[in-house]
Amino acid sequence: MDKKVTHQIVKPKTLAGFQDLLPADAMAQNHLIDQIKTIFHSFGFSPIQTPHLEYSEMLLSESDGEIGKQLFRFQDNGDRDVCLRYDLTVPLARFVVEHLREIGLPFKRYAIGSCFRGERPQQGRYREFTQCDFDILGVDSVFADLEILQVIAAGFQKLGLRIILKLNSRELLNSFIAMIGLADHSIDFIRHLDKKNKIDAETFEAGLRELGCNDDQLEQVLLYLNYATSASSNLVLIENLKTIPGASADFLFAVEKTEILCTLANQTNAKDSLSLDLSLARGFGYYTGHVFETVLVDVPEVGSVAGGGRYNNLTQNFSKELIPGVGASFGVSRILYALSKLNTNQQLTSADILVANLDIEVAPNIIELASKLREQGLRVELYPEVAKLKKQLQFADRKKIPYILIFGATEAEKKILILKNLLTGEQLEIKDISEVTSKISV
Amino acid sequence: MDKKVTHQIVKPKTLAGFQDLLPADAMAQNHLIDQIKTIFHSFGFSPIQTPHLEYSEMLLSESDGEIGKQLFRFQDNGDRDVCLRYDLTVPLARFVVEHLREIGLPFKRYAIGSCFRGERPQQGRYREFTQCDFDILGVDSVFADLEILQVIAAGFQKLGLRIILKLNSRELLNSFIAMIGLADHSIDFIRHLDKKNKIDAETFEAGLRELGCNDDQLEQVLLYLNYATSASSNLVLIENLKTIPGASADFLFAVEKTEILCTLANQTNAKDSLSLDLSLARGFGYYTGHVFETVLVDVPEVGSVAGGGRYNNLTQNFSKELIPGVGASFGVSRILYALSKLNTNQQLTSADILVANLDIEVAPNIIELASKLREQGLRVELYPEVAKLKKQLQFADRKKIPYILIFGATEAEKKILILKNLLTGEQLEIKDISEVTSKISV
Repeated sequence: MDKKVTHQIVKPKTLAGFQDLLPADAMAQNHLIDQIKTIFHSFGFSPIQTPHLEYSEMLLSESDGEIGKQLFRFQDNGDRDVCLRYDLTVPLARFVVEHLREIGLPFKRYAIGSCFRGERPQQGRYREFTQCDFDILGVDSVFADLEILQVIAAGFQKLGLRIILKLNSRELLNSFIAMIGLADHSIDFIRHLDKKNKIDAETFEAGLRELGCNDDQLEQVLLYLNYATSASSNLVLIENLKTIPGASADFLFAVEKTEILCTLANQTNAKDSLSLDLSLARGFGYYTGHVFETVLVDVPEVGSVAGGGRYNNLTQNFSKELIPGVGASFGVSRILYALSKLNTNQQLTSADILVANLDIEVAPNIIELASKLREQGLRVELYPEVAKLKKQLQFADRKKIPYILIFGATEAEKKILILKNLLTGEQLEIKDISEVTSKISV
Repeated sequence: MDKKVTHQIVKPKTLAGFQDLLPADAMAQNHLIDQIKTIFHSFGFSPIQTPHLEYSEMLLSESDGEIGKQLFRFQDNGDRDVCLRYDLTVPLARFVVEHLREIGLPFKRYAIGSCFRGERPQQGRYREFTQCDFDILGVDSVFADLEILQVIAAGFQKLGLRIILKLNSRELLNSFIAMIGLADHSIDFIRHLDKKNKIDAETFEAGLRELGCNDDQLEQVLLYLNYATSASSNLVLIENLKTIPGASADFLFAVEKTEILCTLANQTNAKDSLSLDLSLARGFGYYTGHVFETVLVDVPEVGSVAGGGRYNNLTQNFSKELIPGVGASFGVSRILYALSKLNTNQQLTSADILVANLDIEVAPNIIELASKLREQGLRVELYPEVAKLKKQLQFADRKKIPYILIFGATEAEKKILILKNLLTGEQLEIKDISEVTSKISV
């Protein structure tokens, strides 16, 4: 035991912005991901995996100034410039170009995994976080856009969460901006639009003026953004858009695309939640078509819990051939937070029943009892050493295991088993292990 | 489209030793992990997660000279000395000391995730690889050792793979080494023993001499290691060990522990596969009790597919209090390789049925048909754009989707649906979508 003091004791700690998941949180996250995967599978999405670490040049393009500062980027032992992935979308672009022949198009994939950004840690924001992405590549089709919306709607239906599924179109936005003579500022315009709901009207307008809006343009922008408020449905709003004075051909074409999407969506599970929102921007530069974001009706304060859009230039860094795509992400951490807020997280336990371990003489018996319960499909914990019953009951209580099966020397003599419901305190004597499943509810 | 040529095209590639998983491989891996998780759950193990990145001092102790060279270690943007985890066991030690109050003991956890080692890439060895660990902490009990063996046996039963589950004890080995007067060389001895099956008898003996064995000691070692070959069962072998001339009290105590384990194992699913192997060493320094390794009866050449042992000093770097533990890992990559060798990998597909997309006029109908099939529990892919049937059949063929549902303008007129089995070519006309499930087998 001298060994204990011959070396330095390190105080255990994780890096700021990184977290451990304890069993309750890990079970909740796994359960959530399993539910979302069921939806992905029901729509025929396949899983893929890409490495956590890549050549930096795979993940970064010249335009990534802002994200560059947040990277975990370093030289590996072979002096390669490498980087931990900061999302699952850029690796998807690399993947699809590299494996195009094997996978073929159209290609539907999902990917779930950790991504890394060195952001300043804050409430609910982590430097390692779970992404849960799904995408349809290889078609520039409203069917694909629709399916992404259906998956989002089906996901939240499965989770029992009511949503508003906001929809907009970059083509609408860009053609509108061009219509009013601000085409040169479209990226800045969209970036500014993204801030609209976070700043007051005055600051928003001042920002538009900084982008070069004159009085007339400012009025047109505000008028356009407020179009939605007066319409009773997406399709009514779309009819109104068609009547905008001076509408360009590009703009009308964009309106028509969105009209087809909204019309088809009325045949689906997305029909009640879909809401056309002309001010929805989504900051990322790479979107080229429809964009969407999801907020929870009952927990709107957590912000967007799923979002995405169409990005037809995704593969431009890896190939001269542009592969169109559309996709979205579920925000795993935010959804978990919302579920905990709503208290709809069911109590997840690691076992249905604890088999008590009281006397070494009956060890072979309790091992066999535990095996038989497992064969019946139960999740069974055998207390891993002989100990006092009190200690084992405390253990079951801490782990919220609802039942305990007691078979010690006394019960062996009486040839009985004792089954106790730890939530109600109810205790039953049973004769045979096969009776357990019918006596408990899990 | 000029945009395409204004920037550099990067040739897509992954780092040496890192790999993408394409859908077929990702589905196989997910399926395997789901099966193993079912077993973990049936024994009451809970999931936990720890970060991929940690302070280097958490993962490294002074004695880790060899592993040190293989690390992905760097300074992050905040000048912290950080390191990608190289296993899930050291982070477990950090985790359990940090969260001891919240988790309590005994503590049973599993963890599945990527680990990173900068080894020279070679066939079947990757720099990023999946670990699948499960452990019981807080008890130094033969019940816990047994449960780890049961989980291994149950896992391979579920996978349909026959195993030999080799068992040895560091306490047996260490007390034997002490008995013959070689206690000072025990670590080197165990390291050398690890190579026994990879080198010829002569080289093995020469190595023993280098460790300081004289003729007499050499004979005793060889005699001891060959004890197993003459015994008809683990318990017979154990009886033989008790009769070794000059057996020390420590040795007999170790024999007794292993006897209890083997006796109890005879009550379990491990009884037919468990095989006491006195030459099993497992190189890792940290084992202190029973050690085990698993080889496949039908694919022995892939080596150990699951292994582990008892390590009662695990937390020594983080706490003066030593928490005993026992655990093992499933070797995910090797098991997948073995399954592919045996051709028992069932054909996993991403969808049960493809809904053809032939005419824009019937778009609302096919979207509804697809939804109804999903409600029936099927995994349904709707072809994501209007296209020629031939193209859609090729797509189904490439993705091994076994059925296609055809509803185009022609079928709409006739008020029928066509269901085609793509494996047999058989084609059925059906009247109502509700008939599909009864007509197909998935």
